[in-house]
Amino acid sequence: MKPLQRCAEPVLLPEGFSFATAAAGIKVSGRTDLALAEATKGSVAAAVFTSNRVVAAPVQVGRAFLKKNGGRIRAVLVNSGNANCATGKAGLTACLSVCKDAAALLGGKAAEVFPSSTGIIGVPLPVEKIAKSLPKLFGDRAATESAASQFADAILTTDTRPKIASRRVKVGTKTVTFLGIAKGSGMIHPQLATMLVYIFTDVTATAGELKRALSAASEETFNRISVDGDTSTNDTVLLVASGKSGLRLRGSAKLEKSLLEVCQSLAEQIVTDGEGAQHVIRLVIEQAKSKKEALQIARTIAHSLLVKTAWAGADPNWGRILAAIGRSGIAVDPGKVKIYIGDQIVCRNGAGCVFHAEKAHAALSAPECEVRVQLGRGRSQIQFLTTDLTSEYVSINAHYST
Amino acid sequence: MKPLQRCAEPVLLPEGFSFATAAAGIKVSGRTDLALAEATKGSVAAAVFTSNRVVAAPVQVGRAFLKKNGGRIRAVLVNSGNANCATGKAGLTACLSVCKDAAALLGGKAAEVFPSSTGIIGVPLPVEKIAKSLPKLFGDRAATESAASQFADAILTTDTRPKIASRRVKVGTKTVTFLGIAKGSGMIHPQLATMLVYIFTDVTATAGELKRALSAASEETFNRISVDGDTSTNDTVLLVASGKSGLRLRGSAKLEKSLLEVCQSLAEQIVTDGEGAQHVIRLVIEQAKSKKEALQIARTIAHSLLVKTAWAGADPNWGRILAAIGRSGIAVDPGKVKIYIGDQIVCRNGAGCVFHAEKAHAALSAPECEVRVQLGRGRSQIQFLTTDLTSEYVSINAHYST
Repeated sequence: MKPLQRCAEPVLLPEGFSFATAAAGIKVSGRTDLALAEATKGSVAAAVFTSNRVVAAPVQVGRAFLKKNGGRIRAVLVNSGNANCATGKAGLTACLSVCKDAAALLGGKAAEVFPSSTGIIGVPLPVEKIAKSLPKLFGDRAATESAASQFADAILTTDTRPKIASRRVKVGTKTVTFLGIAKGSGMIHPQLATMLVYIFTDVTATAGELKRALSAASEETFNRISVDGDTSTNDTVLLVASGKSGLRLRGSAKLEKSLLEVCQSLAEQIVTDGEGAQHVIRLVIEQAKSKKEALQIARTIAHSLLVKTAWAGADPNWGRILAAIGRSGIAVDPGKVKIYIGDQIVCRNGAGCVFHAEKAHAALSAPECEVRVQLGRGRSQIQFLTTDLTSEYVSINAHYST
Repeated sequence: MKPLQRCAEPVLLPEGFSFATAAAGIKVSGRTDLALAEATKGSVAAAVFTSNRVVAAPVQVGRAFLKKNGGRIRAVLVNSGNANCATGKAGLTACLSVCKDAAALLGGKAAEVFPSSTGIIGVPLPVEKIAKSLPKLFGDRAATESAASQFADAILTTDTRPKIASRRVKVGTKTVTFLGIAKGSGMIHPQLATMLVYIFTDVTATAGELKRALSAASEETFNRISVDGDTSTNDTVLLVASGKSGLRLRGSAKLEKSLLEVCQSLAEQIVTDGEGAQHVIRLVIEQAKSKKEALQIARTIAHSLLVKTAWAGADPNWGRILAAIGRSGIAVDPGKVKIYIGDQIVCRNGAGCVFHAEKAHAALSAPECEVRVQLGRGRSQIQFLTTDLTSEYVSINAHYST
């Protein structure tokens, strides 16, 4: 078993949370596959979910619970190794049963337990293995950085490293901490899926305030990354606030900025760990009429097989980028488009210009390279992170899995 | 130089056309790269073009010529080895100059010469090489099957074989022939692009009638294939009618069916020759509310990297197909979806069912496999042809090309 790489980011603990993990035997590897975060009484949460119409049982259950409870939450319970997706009614029953068992150990209601699953699709959730592990899991919980760090390990599937980001902000004499933990490297392993993000904080906020802040931060971060263009059936971003800091989120640009930074760091960590990815490409789309059209163009470029394979070869093939822009559905005038690779312009007004090809090749060979597109249509701009497409990606995903 | 595979389809000549080819030195390989089809006086044509907003010079010129001339046409002149795309105003001037030279040799107008280019993007068209080759090209033209067959060879770029389909129909004592010639294996070679299709016929029709028949046939054939989801900047389908048969296209279901068959055969030949493709997948989308939504779902499946890589491994991973359907943008109820691989059902009502995995693997290992999706929404259905995504595709397209 290959040891996991460590995450370079520090783990800063917010007040009001404790963590525990267990190896319930869901993963064949024997690694930890059950992760618990307990939130103190009075905690509230908000979440954003996958836009896929095929949604896993825990997403259906978690969404219903948050709605029913007005965001009140006592625990997050995640299993890896099984996505509990495309499992029909039995999958819903299994998920509810796990939440009920956990609630009994907490002395709370089932609807206060937020469930998540990630792993293989279409295989029944091994409920008994989970039920058997719960008492020890709840007994082991600890409000320590080490326990939070182990939570980050236990939710991984094909990731090569845990993904953690935290920020601590002082306002007057009070301190707020945001601790974000994520998993995901695209929906890219055979029958494995999902980006899961949990952000724990001791800020004080209502569920509605959390939802607004989380939606805004997700739009700028998790919605601006792509490894393979496939939207998972289990994607979940959850923000849980214990209120223990006594500082209000509402109206604090400083706190919202910290939340955004945590999301941004986790989004970058997910892209960098994209399966088979050699290069991260930072697409900068400028001079668009709106952020929406800039995003549509970024996505068309980021999902073009021809563009992604050119990046795999560090090939400054701007014609493919221009052709992708042309089929994006936005009424771009090719005669106004400029494209930069690294710090060089390679296409001006829709036609090629003389550039130093070896220098462009070198820029694209770096672990991260900026590709800048100017549309000549307006003043909106966005950044979007994506990866190249390598033969390794294909061999990993072409592996006969059944 | 690897010899081209031959096309198994017979070449049936319509009346009123002659063909010639030349090696003008545009292709580095020395292969023929200039192809002429001369159409008798009184011939009319209609065309459909790429939907990409970035369009090559010959597409702009050809479209304008057909419009200006009401479809009157005397020649089709194609060069391979250079796409004359992203070449700015100089590209338009180059294209016009070639048409003018050809018209002088014909004794016609420049606007009666329909130009096409396919090959590298962003490199100036070598006008002098073409001009120098034109007199001999026009001198060599012949109304023979062999000359038509050589036309099919000369327009190829990364294709491994020429693509020809023809149908001959008798109506009473008269005979109509449709001869279709195509190139294309997706827009998938470094900086090379384009699907080009030319259909020559001796049917009698107005330009408007040709346009309607061609649009209908293209919608059912060329618009229902995908290798890599990238739309070329040069895609062109041209239908030229000499009228020599004396039979009218209008109102003849039999003749329209022949045209559709020629398009269908060429579309299948293009997909089968998709670069790196091991398997052709025939997607059958059934029980949709409309053909449009069926097409949107087919395209989402056909462009999913996860689905295409699973096919490369002949992996009957239906969860990825279901997840692609879920993100297609159509309000599908996953609980009503059925998926078949070959002749086995693998997913019923959104959940997996017991199936013979080795048999499904074997079905997907064949050169062509049917994947059938039933949506439980309505009565519309379509077929869509696509390919798997192999490591060979990535290595071909990742090659450092500048």
